[in-house]
Amino acid sequence: MEAIEELEIQPCASSLYLRPFRLCYRQNGSKKAWDFMRTHDSVSILIFNTSRQCFVVVKQFRPAVYMCEVERHCPRVFQNQDRENLGHLEDPLPAVAGVTYELCAGIVDKPGLSIEETACEEISEECGYNVPAADLRKITSYRSGVGLTGSRHTLFYAEVTDQMKTGEGGGQPEEGELIEVVEIPLEESMKFAFDESIPKTPGVILGVMWFQNNIAPNLPKK
Amino acid sequence: MEAIEELEIQPCASSLYLRPFRLCYRQNGSKKAWDFMRTHDSVSILIFNTSRQCFVVVKQFRPAVYMCEVERHCPRVFQNQDRENLGHLEDPLPAVAGVTYELCAGIVDKPGLSIEETACEEISEECGYNVPAADLRKITSYRSGVGLTGSRHTLFYAEVTDQMKTGEGGGQPEEGELIEVVEIPLEESMKFAFDESIPKTPGVILGVMWFQNNIAPNLPKK
Repeated sequence: MEAIEELEIQPCASSLYLRPFRLCYRQNGSKKAWDFMRTHDSVSILIFNTSRQCFVVVKQFRPAVYMCEVERHCPRVFQNQDRENLGHLEDPLPAVAGVTYELCAGIVDKPGLSIEETACEEISEECGYNVPAADLRKITSYRSGVGLTGSRHTLFYAEVTDQMKTGEGGGQPEEGELIEVVEIPLEESMKFAFDESIPKTPGVILGVMWFQNNIAPNLPKK
Repeated sequence: MEAIEELEIQPCASSLYLRPFRLCYRQNGSKKAWDFMRTHDSVSILIFNTSRQCFVVVKQFRPAVYMCEVERHCPRVFQNQDRENLGHLEDPLPAVAGVTYELCAGIVDKPGLSIEETACEEISEECGYNVPAADLRKITSYRSGVGLTGSRHTLFYAEVTDQMKTGEGGGQPEEGELIEVVEIPLEESMKFAFDESIPKTPGVILGVMWFQNNIAPNLPKK
């Protein structure tokens, strides 16, 4: 995953993926305008493997995270932003600066699939486990990126066993996904969740804490 | 806050706030490109008022959240997205559809201010309490919006008393902020955190759970 080469920053005048709009309105009498990105709802799944008493999470290279670290390291990197070609990154940071630990997740964009079915498809594609939609437990839902995107994100819990493993996971290479499946042993999970040296999403922390409060007390004693 | 009128969606060809870029790279031999938004690091603060045994959070109208709900309700609302003027929203949803509960928060964009000082400024501006930077406790940090923005978000904990209240809060009207300060009684906070009918950010849920695990056990008994 971490062989990242030929890095080049470009301006992005139009994008298939970034869909900006502006909402103009009057609030309590004052005229306002707010720029936002149209986006999709999404799901993520806290996966716990009971055979091996570990969480199953994913790890991937995130260009947006990487570029935040590049800018922290080299604050002038975007200064040529008006030029047609910002050009190659000289002396780039190691790719690991942009690798984050995340829950298995995906966007809700297939007509006809429920959010539970979408979640199960992601579990299979990214982590290689076959989980029936009826076996998912909803933890809660929340709003992510309220300033920019604001879509609804639903967080599920899924218990799996080694017997439910049907593939390697790793995402869909034809869609450019390159995902590494990582197991976090239960006894190390709270330390992992709060270890800031390991970059991760808030969903990982929220999920592990929820598990400690709601599932761990009822686990069979070893 | 909820008097929102004259809603109009516009295309957004260029924005002072949305700064899109594209990163091109080669990963394990495959050429890839990823569009992302340049953004700032940010902070949020879980505020607990010990005088009144309640959390202090903020509530505001979020255009991005509102438009997600409008599109859920009216899937064709963005279909004129190539027209110069998407025009007025007919029969708009009530503004409350776009109001979310959030931790007191802000972006880190003032040179010379530490992230702790930035957090204290936000506590004062949004919630009206004067908290010394040295009294903040860092809970953890994480990566938000890893697909799109990926900046580092640091979550703090601050204890306040009624005596530390120096103003009304409410944000900076000259910057267009209109923020309502809301108190969540401790005994209702876990129910609040997991009540999906109350739209909120993951930081609220994460913060309240962290408090239950780390602070609540040491509170003096009533």
